[in-house]
Amino acid sequence: MTSAVKSTLPEEARRVTCEALQDTLVDLVGLSLIGKQAHWNIVGPRFRSIHLQLDEVVSTARTYADTVAERSAALGVPPDGRPETVAHGFTLPAPKDGWVRDSDAVQVMVESLEAAIGRLRERIDATEKSDLVTQDLLIAITAELEKQRWMFDAENFPREG
Amino acid sequence: MTSAVKSTLPEEARRVTCEALQDTLVDLVGLSLIGKQAHWNIVGPRFRSIHLQLDEVVSTARTYADTVAERSAALGVPPDGRPETVAHGFTLPAPKDGWVRDSDAVQVMVESLEAAIGRLRERIDATEKSDLVTQDLLIAITAELEKQRWMFDAENFPREG
Amino acid sequence: MTSAVKSTLPEEARRVTCEALQDTLVDLVGLSLIGKQAHWNIVGPRFRSIHLQLDEVVSTARTYADTVAERSAALGVPPDGRPETVAHGFTLPAPKDGWVRDSDAVQVMVESLEAAIGRLRERIDATEKSDLVTQDLLIAITAELEKQRWMFDAENFPREG
Amino acid sequence: MTSAVKSTLPEEARRVTCEALQDTLVDLVGLSLIGKQAHWNIVGPRFRSIHLQLDEVVSTARTYADTVAERSAALGVPPDGRPETVAHGFTLPAPKDGWVRDSDAVQVMVESLEAAIGRLRERIDATEKSDLVTQDLLIAITAELEKQRWMFDAENFPREG
Amino acid sequence: MTSAVKSTLPEEARRVTCEALQDTLVDLVGLSLIGKQAHWNIVGPRFRSIHLQLDEVVSTARTYADTVAERSAALGVPPDGRPETVAHGFTLPAPKDGWVRDSDAVQVMVESLEAAIGRLRERIDATEKSDLVTQDLLIAITAELEKQRWMFDAENFPREG
Amino acid sequence: MTSAVKSTLPEEARRVTCEALQDTLVDLVGLSLIGKQAHWNIVGPRFRSIHLQLDEVVSTARTYADTVAERSAALGVPPDGRPETVAHGFTLPAPKDGWVRDSDAVQVMVESLEAAIGRLRERIDATEKSDLVTQDLLIAITAELEKQRWMFDAENFPREG
Amino acid sequence: MTSAVKSTLPEEARRVTCEALQDTLVDLVGLSLIGKQAHWNIVGPRFRSIHLQLDEVVSTARTYADTVAERSAALGVPPDGRPETVAHGFTLPAPKDGWVRDSDAVQVMVESLEAAIGRLRERIDATEKSDLVTQDLLIAITAELEKQRWMFDAENFPREG
Amino acid sequence: MTSAVKSTLPEEARRVTCEALQDTLVDLVGLSLIGKQAHWNIVGPRFRSIHLQLDEVVSTARTYADTVAERSAALGVPPDGRPETVAHGFTLPAPKDGWVRDSDAVQVMVESLEAAIGRLRERIDATEKSDLVTQDLLIAITAELEKQRWMFDAENFPREG
Amino acid sequence: MTSAVKSTLPEEARRVTCEALQDTLVDLVGLSLIGKQAHWNIVGPRFRSIHLQLDEVVSTARTYADTVAERSAALGVPPDGRPETVAHGFTLPAPKDGWVRDSDAVQVMVESLEAAIGRLRERIDATEKSDLVTQDLLIAITAELEKQRWMFDAENFPREG
Amino acid sequence: MTSAVKSTLPEEARRVTCEALQDTLVDLVGLSLIGKQAHWNIVGPRFRSIHLQLDEVVSTARTYADTVAERSAALGVPPDGRPETVAHGFTLPAPKDGWVRDSDAVQVMVESLEAAIGRLRERIDATEKSDLVTQDLLIAITAELEKQRWMFDAENFPREG
Amino acid sequence: MTSAVKSTLPEEARRVTCEALQDTLVDLVGLSLIGKQAHWNIVGPRFRSIHLQLDEVVSTARTYADTVAERSAALGVPPDGRPETVAHGFTLPAPKDGWVRDSDAVQVMVESLEAAIGRLRERIDATEKSDLVTQDLLIAITAELEKQRWMFDAENFPREG
Amino acid sequence: MTSAVKSTLPEEARRVTCEALQDTLVDLVGLSLIGKQAHWNIVGPRFRSIHLQLDEVVSTARTYADTVAERSAALGVPPDGRPETVAHGFTLPAPKDGWVRDSDAVQVMVESLEAAIGRLRERIDATEKSDLVTQDLLIAITAELEKQRWMFDAENFPREG
Repeated sequence: MTSAVKSTLPEEARRVTCEALQDTLVDLVGLSLIGKQAHWNIVGPRFRSIHLQLDEVVSTARTYADTVAERSAALGVPPDGRPETVAHGFTLPAPKDGWVRDSDAVQVMVESLEAAIGRLRERIDATEKSDLVTQDLLIAITAELEKQRWMFDAENFPREG
Repeated sequence: MTSAVKSTLPEEARRVTCEALQDTLVDLVGLSLIGKQAHWNIVGPRFRSIHLQLDEVVSTARTYADTVAERSAALGVPPDGRPETVAHGFTLPAPKDGWVRDSDAVQVMVESLEAAIGRLRERIDATEKSDLVTQDLLIAITAELEKQRWMFDAENFPREG
Repeated sequence: MTSAVKSTLPEEARRVTCEALQDTLVDLVGLSLIGKQAHWNIVGPRFRSIHLQLDEVVSTARTYADTVAERSAALGVPPDGRPETVAHGFTLPAPKDGWVRDSDAVQVMVESLEAAIGRLRERIDATEKSDLVTQDLLIAITAELEKQRWMFDAENFPREG
Repeated sequence: MTSAVKSTLPEEARRVTCEALQDTLVDLVGLSLIGKQAHWNIVGPRFRSIHLQLDEVVSTARTYADTVAERSAALGVPPDGRPETVAHGFTLPAPKDGWVRDSDAVQVMVESLEAAIGRLRERIDATEKSDLVTQDLLIAITAELEKQRWMFDAENFPREG
Repeated sequence: MTSAVKSTLPEEARRVTCEALQDTLVDLVGLSLIGKQAHWNIVGPRFRSIHLQLDEVVSTARTYADTVAERSAALGVPPDGRPETVAHGFTLPAPKDGWVRDSDAVQVMVESLEAAIGRLRERIDATEKSDLVTQDLLIAITAELEKQRWMFDAENFPREG
Repeated sequence: MTSAVKSTLPEEARRVTCEALQDTLVDLVGLSLIGKQAHWNIVGPRFRSIHLQLDEVVSTARTYADTVAERSAALGVPPDGRPETVAHGFTLPAPKDGWVRDSDAVQVMVESLEAAIGRLRERIDATEKSDLVTQDLLIAITAELEKQRWMFDAENFPREG
Repeated sequence: MTSAVKSTLPEEARRVTCEALQDTLVDLVGLSLIGKQAHWNIVGPRFRSIHLQLDEVVSTARTYADTVAERSAALGVPPDGRPETVAHGFTLPAPKDGWVRDSDAVQVMVESLEAAIGRLRERIDATEKSDLVTQDLLIAITAELEKQRWMFDAENFPREG
Repeated sequence: MTSAVKSTLPEEARRVTCEALQDTLVDLVGLSLIGKQAHWNIVGPRFRSIHLQLDEVVSTARTYADTVAERSAALGVPPDGRPETVAHGFTLPAPKDGWVRDSDAVQVMVESLEAAIGRLRERIDATEKSDLVTQDLLIAITAELEKQRWMFDAENFPREG
Repeated sequence: MTSAVKSTLPEEARRVTCEALQDTLVDLVGLSLIGKQAHWNIVGPRFRSIHLQLDEVVSTARTYADTVAERSAALGVPPDGRPETVAHGFTLPAPKDGWVRDSDAVQVMVESLEAAIGRLRERIDATEKSDLVTQDLLIAITAELEKQRWMFDAENFPREG
Repeated sequence: MTSAVKSTLPEEARRVTCEALQDTLVDLVGLSLIGKQAHWNIVGPRFRSIHLQLDEVVSTARTYADTVAERSAALGVPPDGRPETVAHGFTLPAPKDGWVRDSDAVQVMVESLEAAIGRLRERIDATEKSDLVTQDLLIAITAELEKQRWMFDAENFPREG
Repeated sequence: MTSAVKSTLPEEARRVTCEALQDTLVDLVGLSLIGKQAHWNIVGPRFRSIHLQLDEVVSTARTYADTVAERSAALGVPPDGRPETVAHGFTLPAPKDGWVRDSDAVQVMVESLEAAIGRLRERIDATEKSDLVTQDLLIAITAELEKQRWMFDAENFPREG
Repeated sequence: MTSAVKSTLPEEARRVTCEALQDTLVDLVGLSLIGKQAHWNIVGPRFRSIHLQLDEVVSTARTYADTVAERSAALGVPPDGRPETVAHGFTLPAPKDGWVRDSDAVQVMVESLEAAIGRLRERIDATEKSDLVTQDLLIAITAELEKQRWMFDAENFPREG
């Protein structure tokens, strides 16, 4: 049943492209979960401000996770966003369990978004040859995550040492 | 830092209540992930109809997960919805990886929602004594999931044998 | 085909609960019909004000009738809201045919809502043991009908003798 | 009190016109009730799609029932949409009680709408002489019901034998 | 410059049709002015209710006045809605100057709408032969004004003697 | 019945203020009628642009006419906006009957708004002593009409000689 | 498969009515295409104003084309709006290829709408006997197209000679 | 800490202005509370109409109370709207406790608004010299309260003796 | 006039229930006033964030105060929310007059909401026997206030000592 | 008049780019017409679901056709979307005339979108050198059409043989 | 071409008034630019809160700049808001280039708004004689800027030394 | 403090990219100012049409200026949009001071947008290597400005010599 949906890309291009999409999917679903984790557990004088900002990360991550997964399906490869897949594949920095100080929440989001961006930029290179349509999507995600990273970084000034 | 937020419940009531909330959180976050998994991978003549219906499950699960987690925080216990916690604690039936036939997607949602409802009804009993406010929330979630279970069950007629 | 949709309640609880729901459904569909009847046939100096208020009763009755019927289906018992079922089972006070004076319309709505509330409070007791989720729904309907009864009662001052 | 509202039509024209309106009112209120009945009790693989489509019939029937009843009042004849009047006067095909297969629901709606349309076309002829304003309303209702009949009929292909 | 806009009707049909439209325009602009007059000057225990209802007459009259005037222009005859034309041609019952009791406002609106309807029904007959498109518009206006007349008439019960 | 509504102003202040309001009411109702007249009858290459602009004048005039009339009522003097009052009291430049060239429509609006503004500025002076609340309203109307006058004047360049 | 959808009209009435609908469909789809063509290619000092006005023609034509086609289906005759059918059957005046001067765009729209209206008026006569419901739809389309024709004609003053 | 926010007014002007604002704040908060009191406790045949009208007074009073308090803060003087301050400073006529007849509610609102307006007009004079910006705000509040007073007064005809 | 509105509860249940409602009303009106007081007078680096958060408390308190008061009226007991009643009965912690540091505002809201919640939980127990409908309302209010208390408490970390 | 609008691209780049745009325009206008054709004529048990899905194709095709045509105009080449041009240039698979089974409609949309995508990918290559701005637009259209193709393909499982 | 638009003010009044407007225009355009500058470059723990607040200043400044410029045009004097005019005439305190600490951004906004207010209050005096309509606009701008100044000042507590 | 926000690009890529962004920022802020200048000062028969079109340029320029500036900040380089920077760096054609004829406004917008587009196309080349995410943004801006340039150019036909 692996060929339920036909691909519009040649085999190798499809493999490269959909690997990039699957890895991005795991990063984005993971980001949406840890963004909510921080949203719920944050404490400190900047609680309300960061609490709201974190929900914008979650919203962005959810929307693009959907687009990324559906793009993979559109190319003929079933995406995988199940709990165990995400838990196993997610490697970005994340908050510890329990309450999180506001400054720690800001710091971990800067690091996590930075790591996600680094991985996305590699996939932008990887898909240059395999599928310009997917590359364009990865560029759009990067633009948005870089904007969000900046806002946490600016919030983080002067940096925690 | 475990006492960052004070509780308005006595210790034992808080323990019982927040255990119920934490377990519900894992079920709901898990449901939102497997709902999306089926939403992306479904194939078959009922694709569009079930594809849309699954997004309503996801939307419900996300909204109540947020309410449940914030209720736990409000009672002084930090909720945990991180990828590894969800993957480890999630025990409801879920779709396999790869493409999913529409009839299989319907069947797995009936089973998954049914299992979630059974667990919620136990927690409604458990919180009767510990916290009526939380019980009221669990009742509301059960009402919504029972409605969604019915719709998949009705869609599933005559039942897959 | 009576078992097309499975129940999440044990047999006896389901019987008690769904009887309460079916009786409530008939009351609410009936209320929506007699509310419209008064809405169309009212005459007198308070025409516009009561004409509008009656449409709020209709809107409330329609919305809750839908929720009540779908809750019964969700519990595995098919609801019955067909014309002959409603006509046969509906026992609340109602306007006569023909034009209705505004003061008479107010009076009949006070009486009809009062009777409906009395019956709902009995069903709240009856479902306390059988299904807390359904009880919660009946409580919500009672709250709304008691509010509407008050507004007609206040409008009815000094009471028609 | 039968002359609470004056008519703008001569006596005979009023009689013919308001008879047509009263009969249409019963058909439309009845349609709204059996549409909901099918909406709640439908089962089968097309559950969601037909469940939603039936609510559009209900919405159409309710809106035009209101317009038709108020037109009768405007012409000086009090309309009658009480439960017993509807139950007694409603003669269109309707679903049985209990669960309804999706294909049966479609079939019964085709038949019920077809019967309603036939009766409306007779009333369009009858009001040609008595009141062009009412005729125009009946034409508009017919256009809408014919559209809805087509959609169920198209859904019904190949026809149930 | 009388032929600035060409007509799509033959000369005689145009004459008959546009006369009906011009007369309707004067009635509707006049209605919008006297509706506002009553809206501003009404006093009595039903002030708020009738004050709001009168604005619905004004809104209806303004909208249809615009449609009627543009239909005349579309048929090649310039419409005339200037103050002196309206003052000279407007013959419907209207409120006196100064404060108006609520019951008097209701009474005058019943009479004014009744007169307008009588004139519209004559024009519906007149345009049957000359232009079915214009006739259809006059039918729609009549339906709306008859509804508004009924609402004031129902409000007027028991009638002022 | 002249004292149906009490005034919050002393007698003389009320007289001066309400005269200013009554005159403004006639100007604004008149403007709304001639604005529509030009809106319907305009011809020429700028038809659509001016047709839309004229409706903004009408909308402004209607809104402020309502505020002005209700202000007079609030001060205890019944306003008069009946057809014959407007026709008799309206003295601003207005379009002739029949089709109106676009450049003529622009020109007449410049002149009519200019005349209205001149009269408003006199009333701003007149109410300085009698009622600052009314003066503030007249200032707001002047601001809006001066803006509209400018837009027609700019449209009118180079001026018709 | 020609009888997939049953008709509610007798055979001959259906034939006459659906011919009128099919011809109207071609005219409207064609109008929507040439309206866009002019919308894209117009040049000249009135560019923006006519560019926007043309999109209103397109929007009208698309909406009514949909209603007309679905009415034909509702009467049991499959409508045909495929590219070759439209190209073959469309006979209304249309813009040449390449850039179009604004005055030429106005002129061609006047002519094209005029031709469409003439054909619609014939079909209003033709369907008087065969189907009043369809006739009512054709009347509504004519009203709208005559309004749009007037607006281009007024824009076209003084007429291109 | 009295100088936490700097003033943009000289000392004496600030004192006069902020006294006027503080007194207005107490009147408006008080009005919002007694408006709600009457909204909840009104009985009689005009219940619904006055019940809704009273909520408009409450909404107006709340909105302007906020503006007035923030204006005082903006001028460097902390406003005081605490329960005891309002109870102590509020002197306008108010409803008794318990149910309130509709005619009594109308009467008390006329009196209360009239008293509030009288006090506002004094403050308009007082701030003429001290702060034109504040005066402009007081003028706007007066305009709105005078409108609301008129509507209750008109509703009150013929006046309760 | 104490029996203007009839109760649907027996005498003793009504007494217990309406005492709980009246006390809740005073707490909520008081909370809305001190929430605004803090909203206006807050100073410090978290001004904007807390200023906005306080308005959410005010909005919640106002909405539930309305529901609570109308529930009391619906049960036949006139609620009392007049300034002196609120000032006399309100006992929750509140800000002092004058400017309020942001950290003090947060601290006082934590304490005030905590006290309100403690009182609400007692009333939830008290109404368990007397009226489940009212209990359900008190549970909903408690859920909302506990959420708001948590947000201020989280903002308050590390706690002011 | 071919140079009415100047180009911002050099001659050769303009030629290559605008050829790609013109061909895309024909494909998209054609798609919008055949999407509607299937939307109107579809029959079978999936009628409603596919009927709605087809309108999303039409909406996408119309929106991008507009963007593509205006991009060509912006580059100085007049686009051509007239009926005969579309009929002549359109080569994608399309439904036959008459009723269309739902499975056939799905199949033809998969094929038609697949063909359109293949042609778009060639144009993405062709415009890489000539105009990156146009290439970006073609990439966006491809992303959307590939998503729509996937949804029909998933609906089409198991594939028609 | 200096007299393209005629003035409704005498020469000297126009000169005084339009000078006030031109100077205000430069201040407001400048404020909108430096508000954005701070919005983009702010860093520090209050980043998000002040980042959003600054956009409200920008929005206010842009809206009033438009009103002020169009008022000058309406009075017959062309406003000047070109880059070099703004750069040359803008004298309010502004942020340095490069990143801006949140506390510095707050401080500079307090100072800049304070300076703008001082200049506006002079212009309120200056236009008292020349044009009350313009004075009213300057009063409205001052009210808004004083509110925004207060919010930054309150945020700035305890003040930077 | 130049390193307040870290970059996600290597040093040289960052330099090239942010230079392109800073230059684009100046062009866009400048365009927004001169667009408004023309919007306020335009005179002539096309006043309204161009007045509205210019506001669309302003809206586009403001939105993209914000995106461009925030992208630079996201890359670690503080953007500069202060009045003196814009005045100094802005080199696109602009309207003179004083009134502007409509044809001159169109001409200057064609030239200014054309110059801006030429500069953007160079930056698209420059950022191809340094940052594909920024390049994608510059491509989007170019698409929009080329569309706006075309609309003014088409309006400009036949071209001013």
